[in-house]
Amino acid sequence: MTVALDGYGAEQGFDVLAQGARLAAADGIGVRVFGPRRALGLDGVEGIEVVDTAERIGNDEDPVPAVRAKKEASVVRAAREVSNGDADALVSCGSTGATMAAATFGLRRLKGVQRPALAVQLPVPGKPVLFLDVGANVDVRAQHLVQFAFLGAAFSDAVLEVGNPSVGLLTVGEESGKGREEVVEAHRLLSEAPGINFAGNVEGRDLPAAVTDVVVTDGFTGNVALKLLEGTAKTVAAAVGDAARSNPLAAAGGLLLKPSLNGLRRELHPDSTGGAILLGLRGIAVVGHGSSGAEGIANAVRLAARCAEVDAVGRTAALLAEGGAGRAALAAEGDAGSP
Amino acid sequence: MTVALDGYGAEQGFDVLAQGARLAAADGIGVRVFGPRRALGLDGVEGIEVVDTAERIGNDEDPVPAVRAKKEASVVRAAREVSNGDADALVSCGSTGATMAAATFGLRRLKGVQRPALAVQLPVPGKPVLFLDVGANVDVRAQHLVQFAFLGAAFSDAVLEVGNPSVGLLTVGEESGKGREEVVEAHRLLSEAPGINFAGNVEGRDLPAAVTDVVVTDGFTGNVALKLLEGTAKTVAAAVGDAARSNPLAAAGGLLLKPSLNGLRRELHPDSTGGAILLGLRGIAVVGHGSSGAEGIANAVRLAARCAEVDAVGRTAALLAEGGAGRAALAAEGDAGSP
Repeated sequence: MTVALDGYGAEQGFDVLAQGARLAAADGIGVRVFGPRRALGLDGVEGIEVVDTAERIGNDEDPVPAVRAKKEASVVRAAREVSNGDADALVSCGSTGATMAAATFGLRRLKGVQRPALAVQLPVPGKPVLFLDVGANVDVRAQHLVQFAFLGAAFSDAVLEVGNPSVGLLTVGEESGKGREEVVEAHRLLSEAPGINFAGNVEGRDLPAAVTDVVVTDGFTGNVALKLLEGTAKTVAAAVGDAARSNPLAAAGGLLLKPSLNGLRRELHPDSTGGAILLGLRGIAVVGHGSSGAEGIANAVRLAARCAEVDAVGRTAALLAEGGAGRAALAAEGDAGSP
Repeated sequence: MTVALDGYGAEQGFDVLAQGARLAAADGIGVRVFGPRRALGLDGVEGIEVVDTAERIGNDEDPVPAVRAKKEASVVRAAREVSNGDADALVSCGSTGATMAAATFGLRRLKGVQRPALAVQLPVPGKPVLFLDVGANVDVRAQHLVQFAFLGAAFSDAVLEVGNPSVGLLTVGEESGKGREEVVEAHRLLSEAPGINFAGNVEGRDLPAAVTDVVVTDGFTGNVALKLLEGTAKTVAAAVGDAARSNPLAAAGGLLLKPSLNGLRRELHPDSTGGAILLGLRGIAVVGHGSSGAEGIANAVRLAARCAEVDAVGRTAALLAEGGAGRAALAAEGDAGSP
């Protein structure tokens, strides 16, 4: 089991990225890092191999042309390693756009998938929720939302081991007629679709309440919602901390409560989820948080390794193919029906 | 000062609605309630007048036809009271769609306003953020987003007394090219617009962090984001409570910390903000939370009264008219430029 890790792009620097690679390697995962050998300082570490790489794609570059032009950039080389079969999964904490472009060009889409989608396990207390798309597609049609539902359900079943996962469609009200035109149409298509446990519409408040196992939306709403959820959890946690520093009695209370709150803090921290998975490709690609700490980077590598171990791609393809006739009909109908 | 209050629609029942009316009346606000006289039990309460009303519009009705057909429904009568000049503001905790329809038909739009928008003060700790649109327009064009920015800035200035309020545009990245086509176009228009303090793009995480005074988005994203923010604050607060019940030491800590947390709990509670304001009309309309408690209903009435007191409509109209030539040019450009 080998994970190809982009050695550039971690905002906290090479030391933190290297520390994350060490943590993952200590779990027995082979890590091949494409980055600057000297800055990483990983030579001789068991389970880690460094492929010295000088070229990189920055956050400020237009992803698609950059990936096309820079054949030797770290994320492009790491993706090629996976498409060549020399590594089992790709992980990058760099530019999300560049990672998506490198993965889509390098790994190609599964049969019948029109648009790959970025999925995350939401950092909410209790039952995890798989949420997609969180940024791959800012504009979608109804049929894309339907495909995201199938991709999310397949991943939830195969990797997260949720039996018959329930899927909700994010919109502005419970009733089937609520939301944008493409959402109303996706609701109709999903209601009639065989082979999926469609639970109907869900609203913003249902996301942290974990009402369904999977929640589907477009990449604009999903990206805003994910960042809002992370920001709100952080703000509320900070406000609790402020309250605990407001007077000596409260401070004493905060100290007594702290051990019990640490578990919650871990659950709410974006690092705990290991980043976003690009679903719908013939290979595994994980986009870690740019701001990840060492534990976040290690968790991204662990998530990628786990996807490879359970053959997430093969099982997703198999689930998509099951009852494929029904879905092909859906696809045709969706294409005709949406604007 | 008289507020016309819809006597139906509060999910917690007539007693809670009546209690909310009493709280507001105790502050010296005249409240005229359109609802069932006997169930409300408000006869003889100082400052409150009940107009016995049997007809209502439910959440399950299609708002526009219902408002057109039911001339004697409580929310329609309350809106008519405002358009007749017999009351200064409308408040309803019933169907948001019906309230918007009744207000838009009854109060009409301000000159030049294409689409009224629903705005809320976000329940986040510290500096309040005015957030719109939270549900009036699920689909928007660039020019609508530009108008929301002007409406929000005018309200923030006139009612919230924020001097030269900064306005952010909600999207998926800081750079000007990020987001849906209409968002990218709105960014360009706002960057060139005179008379507005445009702070550029903001992301989901910037909402609870109160990075700008006003945040503008479409009604689909805004509705999802508002409900998500409320849900996340609730979930995190509940998880803190669970942690405080997990063992005796933590419980002791929770007790010591509780007084300091109560302020935060009030700040985060949706009731604290008094509901959503429909901006862009020639009259004042406030949509309270359906699930409001008595304090939430009273705060909705207080918010409406405050808007009337400071002549929010007149001042918004004046601010929109200032430099109107520049904005008219913008409007034409926006109409031509967006799809």
